[in-house]
Amino acid sequence: MIGIGLLGLGTVGTGVVEILEKRQEELKSLTGKEIRIKKILVKNINKKREIQIKENIITSDFEEILNDKDISIVVELTGDLEQSYKYIKSALNSGKNIVTANKAVVSKYFEELSSLAAEKNLAFLYEASVGGGIPILKPLKEELALNKITEVQGILNGTCNYILTKMFNEGLDYKEVLKIAQDMGYAEADPTADVEGHDTLRKLRILGTLALQGKIDENDILLEGISKITSFDIEQIKKMNSTVKLIGEVKGLDGGFTALVQPTIIKEDSYFANVNMAFNSVVFTGDNVGELKFYGSGAGKLPTANAVLGDVLDIINGTYRKGNPLGERKLRNLNTELKSEYYLRISLSNEDIFKSIEKISREVLYKNDNIAILTKEIEYLEIIELISSLGIDKDKYFIARVLK
Amino acid sequence: MIGIGLLGLGTVGTGVVEILEKRQEELKSLTGKEIRIKKILVKNINKKREIQIKENIITSDFEEILNDKDISIVVELTGDLEQSYKYIKSALNSGKNIVTANKAVVSKYFEELSSLAAEKNLAFLYEASVGGGIPILKPLKEELALNKITEVQGILNGTCNYILTKMFNEGLDYKEVLKIAQDMGYAEADPTADVEGHDTLRKLRILGTLALQGKIDENDILLEGISKITSFDIEQIKKMNSTVKLIGEVKGLDGGFTALVQPTIIKEDSYFANVNMAFNSVVFTGDNVGELKFYGSGAGKLPTANAVLGDVLDIINGTYRKGNPLGERKLRNLNTELKSEYYLRISLSNEDIFKSIEKISREVLYKNDNIAILTKEIEYLEIIELISSLGIDKDKYFIARVLK
Repeated sequence: MIGIGLLGLGTVGTGVVEILEKRQEELKSLTGKEIRIKKILVKNINKKREIQIKENIITSDFEEILNDKDISIVVELTGDLEQSYKYIKSALNSGKNIVTANKAVVSKYFEELSSLAAEKNLAFLYEASVGGGIPILKPLKEELALNKITEVQGILNGTCNYILTKMFNEGLDYKEVLKIAQDMGYAEADPTADVEGHDTLRKLRILGTLALQGKIDENDILLEGISKITSFDIEQIKKMNSTVKLIGEVKGLDGGFTALVQPTIIKEDSYFANVNMAFNSVVFTGDNVGELKFYGSGAGKLPTANAVLGDVLDIINGTYRKGNPLGERKLRNLNTELKSEYYLRISLSNEDIFKSIEKISREVLYKNDNIAILTKEIEYLEIIELISSLGIDKDKYFIARVLK
Repeated sequence: MIGIGLLGLGTVGTGVVEILEKRQEELKSLTGKEIRIKKILVKNINKKREIQIKENIITSDFEEILNDKDISIVVELTGDLEQSYKYIKSALNSGKNIVTANKAVVSKYFEELSSLAAEKNLAFLYEASVGGGIPILKPLKEELALNKITEVQGILNGTCNYILTKMFNEGLDYKEVLKIAQDMGYAEADPTADVEGHDTLRKLRILGTLALQGKIDENDILLEGISKITSFDIEQIKKMNSTVKLIGEVKGLDGGFTALVQPTIIKEDSYFANVNMAFNSVVFTGDNVGELKFYGSGAGKLPTANAVLGDVLDIINGTYRKGNPLGERKLRNLNTELKSEYYLRISLSNEDIFKSIEKISREVLYKNDNIAILTKEIEYLEIIELISSLGIDKDKYFIARVLK
């Protein structure tokens, strides 16, 4: 018997219970063992749940899981950051393998937890933390043995992609679509982490650090979210035969890297333009294997639970990559070398501001109640400084990189 | 030391040697072992080669590899069918693990070799046989533990995809493009296996048998190649805002399956329409994970060698799925239930033939020196029978399925 301790019984936790039940026979014949959830940690024992759970396995005391010798795998699905860090660390120190879907904790404590697990000869797996149901971290780790990875890019947040797709397809305004997304469960009541790009940034930090085999930290990544986009912007973008996606990108350069998460304007017939709604996609390039693209559900109960259970099976079968997958390359942040064309819209009709903006402009797209320009090749931070020097409020502009 | 016996030193074999050399250090630190090619079987020992190989490891005697106790992994890259089957069987019987890129031998002897390897507790891995460098068979096998796979589709042949892309983009005729493809090394001197769809069919047989967990044999798959397509056809297809790809598809139905390899007309903004040139892509759907798409180089020295070496590493690290991955479901061939709209072009201007064809037509696209129609929903074999009953030569028509 393989005992599992589940931390959290929210959407993904419920999915894990459901799939384990549905696939009971197949899993038993495949692993030769019974996989049993022995304990589930919840905040409120008495809460009504959508699935039936044996009463005696629900607990609000983490120590019960830590002290249960039959539990060899702890599946962390709390969504909490500092609390889950403590749980994971204690569990590793008690000799238990870890599976988590929590990108925040993996991103913040990636090096520490990876090295602790390796030192203890335990698994620390987090496939579901990036790209939801898409098998992406395992293939990436595997390709690293045979390839120098030079680049990784992704559409990594289903909420943003849903909002941008809906705005593009239906001409709706940002706030209307956000409301729909919230009503449908695609966006949370407080959507900040998604729409401001923090969630994408954490996933990119994980992908980039693995891909380049050196630490790329959260604050190494240039960040611009999607919350300021308007239907006016979408109109301009359509006129360019393009669409817009929130894309995270890490590139390896000689001795260093560039890293950004930014709304990105791409041609309508490009690959990422066809990754729509709540789907995610990750693309990376190795010097031997070439370019690989992975696409699938970026979120959702069953896809995410499926990825979690993939990790559990890898632990049971011993089929995960042993040792610390992180490299020790010291990489310089070369973001200042990153120049690109940008789309810039300012919601003001002010001649002084227009004159200042004109200096960085390659093409003026619109000049009336809004000013919209395409910039020359320029550093992102130069634009931010210019805007800030002009005293333009944060909610009065929108910036997107333009890929040719 | 891990000893490898390489059978064949053609393009992929050379790639294997090159990558092993290039990644020597990383692989040693990763596996803790030296991976050494101990023997290479070739037909002609004295042939001049593009890489330097120590003389004493080249042999033309397979027995030398079979009897070398230091060789635990045989990598079969001969491209031969019956001979390689004998090699693989002997090697398994001598306790050696197998890695092969040879789709013909995997397709023909899939059940026998899978069960022999499982019985002997040895690995029989063939990632490179489908989708070249794309990691597809391993993820598929892994998802099978947690999912009922209901469908698998793919663009599986780089030669066909290169030809169709070039014809579409440049308006060239089939023969011109084939010549270019041959000159560039994308097509062989005798292109039959590629352009008539046999190569795609073998890969689909492998994918489908794994996906549905029951035998789908080569002759279970409806087959139509691309060799009869003309620039006239491409023109008609463009007028439909569509493009054409050679797509292999297996669908699971209640108690059975449908399986086909056919030129398929798809909308220009659909996913497969953007898989161009020599790239491949495989899409499958699981009941938990949802739809997954994989994209990458379908052929080429380094991508294919990379996939071969991925299998080798899995054997060394013990990180492959043990046991026989094939299922024992008895599946009925339900291809007669498969109806679709087809594009049919006949290179004749004959009123009698037109009248017969008109009966199955939904829309006449062209009627002059050629007849081109879109059919009603119809069985593929009905069209073939009609054409044959009218005495139309094989080289006088082209058929493609139309996906809506």
